[in-house]
Amino acid sequence: MVKTQAAFLALVKQVSLVRMNLTLLGWDARTYLPPAGTDFRGELTATLSAQDLALSAGLEMGEFVAYFTAHPDELDTQSQQVLRLVKRDYELNHEIAPADYADYQQTLTHAQGVWETARAAQDFSLLQPDLVKIVAQQKAFIPKWRHGQATDYDVLLDLYEPGMTVAQLDPIMATLKAGIHRLRERLQTQGVTPRDAFMSRAVPEDVQEQLVRTVVQRLGYDFTKGDLSRSTHPFTVSLDRNDVRITNRYDEHAFQMAFLGGIHEAGHGLYMQNFNPAYDYTPLADAPSMGLHESQSLFNEIFLARNPAFWQGEYPRFQAATGDIFADIDEPTFYRGFMTTEPTLIRTEADPLTYPLHIIVRYELEKGLFNGDTTVAELPDLWRQKYHDYLGIEPDNDTDGILQDIHWAGGDFGYFPTYLLGQLYAAQFYHTMCQELPVTAILRSGDYQPITQWRREKIHWLGASLTPNQLCEQVTGEPLNPQYWLDWMTQTFETAYQVTDK
Amino acid sequence: MVKTQAAFLALVKQVSLVRMNLTLLGWDARTYLPPAGTDFRGELTATLSAQDLALSAGLEMGEFVAYFTAHPDELDTQSQQVLRLVKRDYELNHEIAPADYADYQQTLTHAQGVWETARAAQDFSLLQPDLVKIVAQQKAFIPKWRHGQATDYDVLLDLYEPGMTVAQLDPIMATLKAGIHRLRERLQTQGVTPRDAFMSRAVPEDVQEQLVRTVVQRLGYDFTKGDLSRSTHPFTVSLDRNDVRITNRYDEHAFQMAFLGGIHEAGHGLYMQNFNPAYDYTPLADAPSMGLHESQSLFNEIFLARNPAFWQGEYPRFQAATGDIFADIDEPTFYRGFMTTEPTLIRTEADPLTYPLHIIVRYELEKGLFNGDTTVAELPDLWRQKYHDYLGIEPDNDTDGILQDIHWAGGDFGYFPTYLLGQLYAAQFYHTMCQELPVTAILRSGDYQPITQWRREKIHWLGASLTPNQLCEQVTGEPLNPQYWLDWMTQTFETAYQVTDK
Repeated sequence: MVKTQAAFLALVKQVSLVRMNLTLLGWDARTYLPPAGTDFRGELTATLSAQDLALSAGLEMGEFVAYFTAHPDELDTQSQQVLRLVKRDYELNHEIAPADYADYQQTLTHAQGVWETARAAQDFSLLQPDLVKIVAQQKAFIPKWRHGQATDYDVLLDLYEPGMTVAQLDPIMATLKAGIHRLRERLQTQGVTPRDAFMSRAVPEDVQEQLVRTVVQRLGYDFTKGDLSRSTHPFTVSLDRNDVRITNRYDEHAFQMAFLGGIHEAGHGLYMQNFNPAYDYTPLADAPSMGLHESQSLFNEIFLARNPAFWQGEYPRFQAATGDIFADIDEPTFYRGFMTTEPTLIRTEADPLTYPLHIIVRYELEKGLFNGDTTVAELPDLWRQKYHDYLGIEPDNDTDGILQDIHWAGGDFGYFPTYLLGQLYAAQFYHTMCQELPVTAILRSGDYQPITQWRREKIHWLGASLTPNQLCEQVTGEPLNPQYWLDWMTQTFETAYQVTDK
Repeated sequence: MVKTQAAFLALVKQVSLVRMNLTLLGWDARTYLPPAGTDFRGELTATLSAQDLALSAGLEMGEFVAYFTAHPDELDTQSQQVLRLVKRDYELNHEIAPADYADYQQTLTHAQGVWETARAAQDFSLLQPDLVKIVAQQKAFIPKWRHGQATDYDVLLDLYEPGMTVAQLDPIMATLKAGIHRLRERLQTQGVTPRDAFMSRAVPEDVQEQLVRTVVQRLGYDFTKGDLSRSTHPFTVSLDRNDVRITNRYDEHAFQMAFLGGIHEAGHGLYMQNFNPAYDYTPLADAPSMGLHESQSLFNEIFLARNPAFWQGEYPRFQAATGDIFADIDEPTFYRGFMTTEPTLIRTEADPLTYPLHIIVRYELEKGLFNGDTTVAELPDLWRQKYHDYLGIEPDNDTDGILQDIHWAGGDFGYFPTYLLGQLYAAQFYHTMCQELPVTAILRSGDYQPITQWRREKIHWLGASLTPNQLCEQVTGEPLNPQYWLDWMTQTFETAYQVTDK
């Protein structure tokens, strides 16, 4: 078979079409698939997953990868970028023997079922044997996945955040831990705790959905290329840049959840609606990493939707849309209530200031498991100890503690840090944007187009053509720096808490 | 390659999975696909359609068909039934040269675009050249599609209603034409035209949707295996018996449309939710014909939801669900208004009594085109003449006349009769059911389970294991007989119109 760029890209396109198809099946399974349809769906999904693997990690792809690695000059620049991503994907999937991979998948499927049972029983020890097995299997895979990383845990980090290392993360985590601690103390001792009882006032679900719909549209999410459906947990998928779907959930007495949740997902959606069309049907039509993907949802959720200037513009519209529910609450009072910070046991319910502490707990435990001598059996005690030390609270049971996330039962060790990296990237991007645009005035105006445009040009359009570090440096002029996050949080929460130096 | 039953069924299953996938893509395109996503979707659909054709009409399938046609004893009974359907499918798709088929598809795509333009311009002559071409291409295909049929038009009828012929249809149409004419005259001269202004009272869309949801559920449509979404035109698809999806549309001032439309689609849905699980992943999990499929939706829509006993039971619930909108309308008045019959220009807006006349017009024109010497150019005049003669009304323009249906521009000559056959099968099934069950009492009770059960056992469970004629005779003990339809319509409309012999 002749190894031409066109033939290579045709095979890459086939992979892309199968994945587009799988994405639709996944979205459908979480939105409209009738409950009884799961077995048939499993059959179809398995068939397509097998096709995906055969195409993306099979003989033919292997030959292309080998040939073009030896003859990079026979590819144009963009196709070389495609090769970089395809090769990464190929090598990850190709190194593991199919039987071992099948074993591993079986372990994960089993563990996820057990995780549900263990949660219902509030008993981590039920899940322990499965986790021990997952960790052992991952430790066996790590040498095959390794391509130059210094530590075992670096290999796992690299799966989700290419290039990220413990050496880079350790000092970031230390800075954040100390900075958050200082700021929280200052808010407690020198701030005014906001009134926030009105945050649980009933807002009908339809009104919430309509609010979300209009605000995400003004934040740039394009409904001619998008959908907003309901699901148990909000999520975003993209079949292609013209078919990007967000979902949301609603609780009458928790409008903030739906409001921020929808805006968060629309940040992911905005990213994927704006990839360079030249990247269609290639892996370049993606974010460079999970952390960078998350940076765009969190940019929306935190740096825009929790911004005082945003509410100065939005609040009159919000009041009008919600009838007379908040008629007695003025904008500064509303904003302060919206920004209440309080430690929670559950990561997904945390406010942005305490959120990093949840990640730091998980990061330290994972690092101990893979780079240190922590055992799975020790995790629950360590979990309680660290929640006590960092957040000042402790779970009464494993369900509100170590069993709260499905990630480990799904084999996703090394994933959690990307949630935090998303916040840090977002803060750094926001800082740069403020130097290039009159952000406060734009936010107050309610016409967010200049912000959308800036993000599109600097970040979204580029897809995965750069590595995470390259993108960060190109946009902001420096590597990832947690100080921008700390500065924004300090300024914002001190305002919301009316901190005065006593 | 060894020709075993297992290998044959494995290939049949592959076809089934690809079609399940295509069905989801089609449903999604009509419900949630963002408008901008159509080009990418076209690419994915084309890829899967090509896979479908390669599998169902390719070399390997051809070898299986040839081998097992020669060695039927090497298949069990069920697999012989599968072979019958697979072979039919194979031969239809295989006889046409790929280039001719591609040409034909291109003609159809072009014609459907022109149909829209011609409708906007209210001018049939714009579509005429495309229709001439489609008819010519079909006439060239007919010899290849023929397997023993007596006339050209029989070949087309057989595509949608296997075994149906002009020889069988001509006397049916004559009986209906005469019978409907007599009945309509009797209603006009000896009946009381119902009050029906209340039929356009505003009923909020959400209330309509909730009404449809509860009533279709009681009529047996199972939401654990089903969905109800919105689309421009209502339709039903089935990915598999556990994933059957209906859609509906709502107009605040036309609750009857949504009510009957939802019940109609749920009839299709009920059919597909109840195929014998032994037929999974084979073409046996289908109705034997379009007419029989339609019989189950029309059974719901006409013989249940327009049944006086049904409303005697449902009306109090209907009144409660619609607040005080119909508080001043008693049940007999409501039912009579619900049953108003009046000729319409548009087929899809017709009541069940005048509906067959719309089909008879089309049947006669199609028969003339393929078996007679009618030309495409003559169609508009013939159309107006026949509407005048049969319905007593004439369209002012082609859009309300011959351009109202997309079928001919889609190449679907021979399809229209199945809509009418659906009514006739449904009436005959209903007649048999009344001899085996206390139908009136069941309908009044609101607990429709015995009816659902009867239909499941007699019809749904059997899928496509019998031919249409076999099924009709097995359920009712005789071939299709239009008298049952005429009898039911006479009795029902004479009651609604309070006909007295003067």
